[in-house]
Amino acid sequence: MPNEQTLRAQVRDFVDTVLLPLEGRYLNEPWAAVVGALDGARAEARARGLWAPHLPVAMGGCGLSLLDFAAVSEELGRTPIGHYALNCQAPDIGNMELLHAHGSVAQRKQWLGPLARGEIRSCFAMTEPERAGSNPTWLEARAERDGDDYVISGHKWFTSAADGAAFAIVMAVTDALAPPHKRASQVIVPTTTPGYSLVRNIKVMGDAGEGYATHGEVRFDKCRVPVTNRIGDEGEGFTLAQARLGPGRIHHCMRWMGICERALDLTCRHAATRELSPGVVLGTRQSVQHMIADSRAEIDAARLLILETARQIDAHGAAAARESVSTIKFFAAGVLQRVLDRAIQVHGALGMTDDTPLAYWFRHERAARIYDGADEVHKSVVARRILKGYGVVVRE
Amino acid sequence: MPNEQTLRAQVRDFVDTVLLPLEGRYLNEPWAAVVGALDGARAEARARGLWAPHLPVAMGGCGLSLLDFAAVSEELGRTPIGHYALNCQAPDIGNMELLHAHGSVAQRKQWLGPLARGEIRSCFAMTEPERAGSNPTWLEARAERDGDDYVISGHKWFTSAADGAAFAIVMAVTDALAPPHKRASQVIVPTTTPGYSLVRNIKVMGDAGEGYATHGEVRFDKCRVPVTNRIGDEGEGFTLAQARLGPGRIHHCMRWMGICERALDLTCRHAATRELSPGVVLGTRQSVQHMIADSRAEIDAARLLILETARQIDAHGAAAARESVSTIKFFAAGVLQRVLDRAIQVHGALGMTDDTPLAYWFRHERAARIYDGADEVHKSVVARRILKGYGVVVRE
Amino acid sequence: MPNEQTLRAQVRDFVDTVLLPLEGRYLNEPWAAVVGALDGARAEARARGLWAPHLPVAMGGCGLSLLDFAAVSEELGRTPIGHYALNCQAPDIGNMELLHAHGSVAQRKQWLGPLARGEIRSCFAMTEPERAGSNPTWLEARAERDGDDYVISGHKWFTSAADGAAFAIVMAVTDALAPPHKRASQVIVPTTTPGYSLVRNIKVMGDAGEGYATHGEVRFDKCRVPVTNRIGDEGEGFTLAQARLGPGRIHHCMRWMGICERALDLTCRHAATRELSPGVVLGTRQSVQHMIADSRAEIDAARLLILETARQIDAHGAAAARESVSTIKFFAAGVLQRVLDRAIQVHGALGMTDDTPLAYWFRHERAARIYDGADEVHKSVVARRILKGYGVVVRE
Amino acid sequence: MPNEQTLRAQVRDFVDTVLLPLEGRYLNEPWAAVVGALDGARAEARARGLWAPHLPVAMGGCGLSLLDFAAVSEELGRTPIGHYALNCQAPDIGNMELLHAHGSVAQRKQWLGPLARGEIRSCFAMTEPERAGSNPTWLEARAERDGDDYVISGHKWFTSAADGAAFAIVMAVTDALAPPHKRASQVIVPTTTPGYSLVRNIKVMGDAGEGYATHGEVRFDKCRVPVTNRIGDEGEGFTLAQARLGPGRIHHCMRWMGICERALDLTCRHAATRELSPGVVLGTRQSVQHMIADSRAEIDAARLLILETARQIDAHGAAAARESVSTIKFFAAGVLQRVLDRAIQVHGALGMTDDTPLAYWFRHERAARIYDGADEVHKSVVARRILKGYGVVVRE
Repeated sequence: MPNEQTLRAQVRDFVDTVLLPLEGRYLNEPWAAVVGALDGARAEARARGLWAPHLPVAMGGCGLSLLDFAAVSEELGRTPIGHYALNCQAPDIGNMELLHAHGSVAQRKQWLGPLARGEIRSCFAMTEPERAGSNPTWLEARAERDGDDYVISGHKWFTSAADGAAFAIVMAVTDALAPPHKRASQVIVPTTTPGYSLVRNIKVMGDAGEGYATHGEVRFDKCRVPVTNRIGDEGEGFTLAQARLGPGRIHHCMRWMGICERALDLTCRHAATRELSPGVVLGTRQSVQHMIADSRAEIDAARLLILETARQIDAHGAAAARESVSTIKFFAAGVLQRVLDRAIQVHGALGMTDDTPLAYWFRHERAARIYDGADEVHKSVVARRILKGYGVVVRE
Repeated sequence: MPNEQTLRAQVRDFVDTVLLPLEGRYLNEPWAAVVGALDGARAEARARGLWAPHLPVAMGGCGLSLLDFAAVSEELGRTPIGHYALNCQAPDIGNMELLHAHGSVAQRKQWLGPLARGEIRSCFAMTEPERAGSNPTWLEARAERDGDDYVISGHKWFTSAADGAAFAIVMAVTDALAPPHKRASQVIVPTTTPGYSLVRNIKVMGDAGEGYATHGEVRFDKCRVPVTNRIGDEGEGFTLAQARLGPGRIHHCMRWMGICERALDLTCRHAATRELSPGVVLGTRQSVQHMIADSRAEIDAARLLILETARQIDAHGAAAARESVSTIKFFAAGVLQRVLDRAIQVHGALGMTDDTPLAYWFRHERAARIYDGADEVHKSVVARRILKGYGVVVRE
Repeated sequence: MPNEQTLRAQVRDFVDTVLLPLEGRYLNEPWAAVVGALDGARAEARARGLWAPHLPVAMGGCGLSLLDFAAVSEELGRTPIGHYALNCQAPDIGNMELLHAHGSVAQRKQWLGPLARGEIRSCFAMTEPERAGSNPTWLEARAERDGDDYVISGHKWFTSAADGAAFAIVMAVTDALAPPHKRASQVIVPTTTPGYSLVRNIKVMGDAGEGYATHGEVRFDKCRVPVTNRIGDEGEGFTLAQARLGPGRIHHCMRWMGICERALDLTCRHAATRELSPGVVLGTRQSVQHMIADSRAEIDAARLLILETARQIDAHGAAAARESVSTIKFFAAGVLQRVLDRAIQVHGALGMTDDTPLAYWFRHERAARIYDGADEVHKSVVARRILKGYGVVVRE
Repeated sequence: MPNEQTLRAQVRDFVDTVLLPLEGRYLNEPWAAVVGALDGARAEARARGLWAPHLPVAMGGCGLSLLDFAAVSEELGRTPIGHYALNCQAPDIGNMELLHAHGSVAQRKQWLGPLARGEIRSCFAMTEPERAGSNPTWLEARAERDGDDYVISGHKWFTSAADGAAFAIVMAVTDALAPPHKRASQVIVPTTTPGYSLVRNIKVMGDAGEGYATHGEVRFDKCRVPVTNRIGDEGEGFTLAQARLGPGRIHHCMRWMGICERALDLTCRHAATRELSPGVVLGTRQSVQHMIADSRAEIDAARLLILETARQIDAHGAAAARESVSTIKFFAAGVLQRVLDRAIQVHGALGMTDDTPLAYWFRHERAARIYDGADEVHKSVVARRILKGYGVVVRE
């Protein structure tokens, strides 16, 4: 196992030499046309010992701590195909972490193994179109006990990467009368289960996508699966979802930092070469300089905040770091959006095209301020925890 | 000719009853699949006497003043297909205004007539990939005089709607040694001219588009056209381009106001109906309320500023209103971006989808702060004019 | 009576020639040292026929409509001593308008006459230190009926200009069991009344001030006044306070526009003359240019919004314009703060000194986003009214 | 010498128990009335071993590294009188550091000793009213060699704490023909020198102040001092000024973090206790929650960025950290201003008063974005250094 610095350098080199040459194809061709080349990159990653950096060595991964993986995640974030190439892409990474920590021996064998080896993909079905995401305990989907089975019915969307997934992990209410945070459970539903259907790949920002690069609307119509497909105890669904979010937000936030670094790098390259008149480059403009400086400062500050949070989680667990985890979510998402906006502005018309990855990120990462808890939700979470220290218990 | 209030109400009704039902198809289907229905809407517009509101009655239009057309443009802006349906879409509207004001009798007969009747489409080839748009006098394209012809060579992009256009009006240098603002002329080049080629429909924000809904990269390789295809005098190209921008910016800015009104309307509908928990709607949240109020205030302020500028142009001409025209460009573009961003935030995951027009506008109207002069350019223009009043002549 | 354009020009000239030369003294000397000169300016204003522009001609004023007074208020706002010089300074102007519209004949004779002639000053005691201003119906002060008298007790602060005032108009609860908006009444309490005391001139932003330029903390300890000192009917206090706010906000907002114009003028003068190196002035800097352009745009937009609201009030009354009145309050206050902040930034160290009025406004006008309803309150008011149109009744 | 954690706790306790009870007097009484109590606090600090934490133990200080002092500076920043009480207030701390690192033996004996013991105060005369601070090499002040003396003439302002200072260190041109960065030298001028005069304590944000709490306008009219009063070599003035700024900015930035923490603490206390209606506190409002969360995130991010920079300076010297030092200057100043603005907004009218330190900081710390290099200057510095890495040399 390489040390963190070496590994990071290796990942950086892998991104620069293997992935960046593929990036343009990913941005401009359909998934089906590119997936072969991506699988080649995956093979190369495996050959270089970079595969599944988040997983234990025993499972074929690199066994990184959260802090060390954070650095790798940033490097991978520099291109939209980075995480996929190393098999640490959402939502599979979260599903792997979940199964690794909470799956039964049988579940791990049947589902985690193939996932870890990159033989299958998976999805996570939580968000419902009829229910506000800001109230995650209020779900319509039901998993009703019938003997040794659950019979699951529900309507989900933003089930990312459902297209082509071998199984879904679905959040469904198992006891509607329990206290709100104890109502739901997480259950594995193979996508071959009768009653399961992928309604559509939702057109998101103009793009329905294909295969991995999709957000599915799915229906569970009396899907029958054995009770042993439940992950953890009954009623633990919400708790498991929360546990998933701590490290998951570190992954995302560091991925965003990678996006930011790339966007700033592209900005500087453009500013350094684009001429306004013969011999006078864009970077001589004070407005461009100030955008570069603002982005530099915000990225550096955000990264330190994220790494400090990763350190807290590594040292004390995700629960102890909940306020910090909420803080980095909205803070880093805000930085991401501003950095991308500045990058496009400096690029001018070019920034609107798919000749750079900026436009891709601009439109798809707009979701960063929405998914996994909107900014507004996280800010209130942080404030209520702070105010608790002043003796005030505030409910939303 | 109906009066302005009546006409506005008629346009509003036309948008609500004819266009909004088509909008979802435009957002989710290819141009070729929708253009038939859009042509049907065009016929209906003509039947209702709403056709080409910007053109004189004698040319089959409504003969509106700039101020009256502004109100119509806002109504049409409420849907992405509004302006097309009434044949007042960019870039054709600008080309029609140009030919009407500065075209020769022959040019008007050959090109303006069919444009005004909606029989053909056109494009405007000005921006060059190798030259910064912020310096519009620095062009590579050349129109060299050869007897009674121009021989035109050049490379252009963001030639919107080039796909399917019958002719392009191209900005090309006719005298490289003239003072910067006298170097270029505008020349009509039929797209059937040998040497003309549409290289590609540029993929913009993930979408290469088709037909009208495109931004072309085009090449002119020794295109030979008669000198009589030049619009106005030789060397007047930049002046004509400037003249085009005054009313053009009013059109755009009011179209943005229509977008803003629709976005705010969708925001309020969602806030009024989306439940966070049984019986508690999103609109009870202070953060949502404040977004609504901020958008309301900014839209109202921006509209008044635009209408005041239209009034100035109607009364004193575009030249006298240059500072105001620059001001509304960056001010309204900023409002547009913030209003759309808030609308998406309030919509949550739904805002990311193409189930509403918000995502379409969010990605395509990002260009509003770039085209026709980036914010940074307009702000400097405004400031330099103000500072001139203090005795300072500041060159960029 | 001069027409509006003439009057405005006369007021402008009065400000430029009479008041600006006095301004530095106001900013740097105690009130007592300057009041003599200010009274001289008042005499001059009267001589020029500019006195009390808001009052009817019959009362010695100019009889301006709200819209016409708005233009005058902007001119006066260009200096901190403008409104005082014409006897239309808050809170006296509000008290005059109140007494004129709702005072009894006796009240008008005893209190409005001398106020209108500038012989006395007055104050308005509403805000209480122990009660949040955002809930104006929740007051501690009590006016208890005792025969033909009220016995008033209460604790107020931010009773502006209490120092030297001849009387206070106090908001006090007359019926604690009435519905919230019917509990309080407004009663005139001469400051010579036993039990009335000015506890202190509150030190506000470092400055306790003196005379007119103060914010008082006052106590009413069983102040006995005749019931005839009540303005309007019992329980009407809140309604009268609301009615006061409509025109009052126009006054304030236009005064802020005057501040903004002056701040921008100072900014441009400084940018046009301050050298960064020999021959290179500050105004060549893009960042300075952009601050100038942003301020120009925001001021123009805000002014149009305010004037449109004044037009609504003149045409349909303050009640019909409530949403607009709330909108301009927070929108214009935000513009004011940003314009002042930019002006100081461009001035550098000079902006921190009292050698210009910028520092005075920066600190004292910070209150603009707080008094007469904080931004947060107004935004919610606006949004709730909008959402009512969508069928949602939202209580805070 | 206590370890850093212990020392920090001791300083915190000292601030809480000794300084906070004095703070209200500092905010509301003249310097002369408070200085006795402050000197008592100084004696107490000395008795507790907290004196001059930035100085070596041998000089009576605590011998802290820059990083350790950073933590102490933050604690002291929680009250406006913190740094003074421990004799590490600007500009004396900078002068002490300068004399310690670059002063001759004689200079250290005569001036540093008494400064370190708190027996005298000093000032630093650099900024000139006629010259833009953003061009620090363009100075009017002259130190002309005359035998073994310099004869110094010049006009300075924002010479902080000049009132009562025993000596000034003045930046003056010693060779007008040298390259810009080699023109000036720093020379010690006792304030008893004939020709030296304190013209005025500049009224800054309404407050001319007295004694230490002042910003002086000073004149040097042919002040004759021995050449041995020069610090370092001739022409080194600018280099020494730069060297001063690295650690100085860490001090300032961490002091700002202390201000921010106090402002946020006051905000939370107010939000937790201020009732909007019986039993409903301000902290239940989402807008207040979001302000708290935004401030929390920004403060934490800024602090990490500052500490990282302190670490760089401790490890590699100020020169190696120049980009970071510029970055924290503008980033932290921006955070400071936003945190204070939010704190005042949450406090409402109370925030405008001097009953809390918020209003003091709001007005005086507005200078944070101006002094020691305006935001605009630092942003361009950062961007130009970044762009140099892309092969572009950009001059302002």
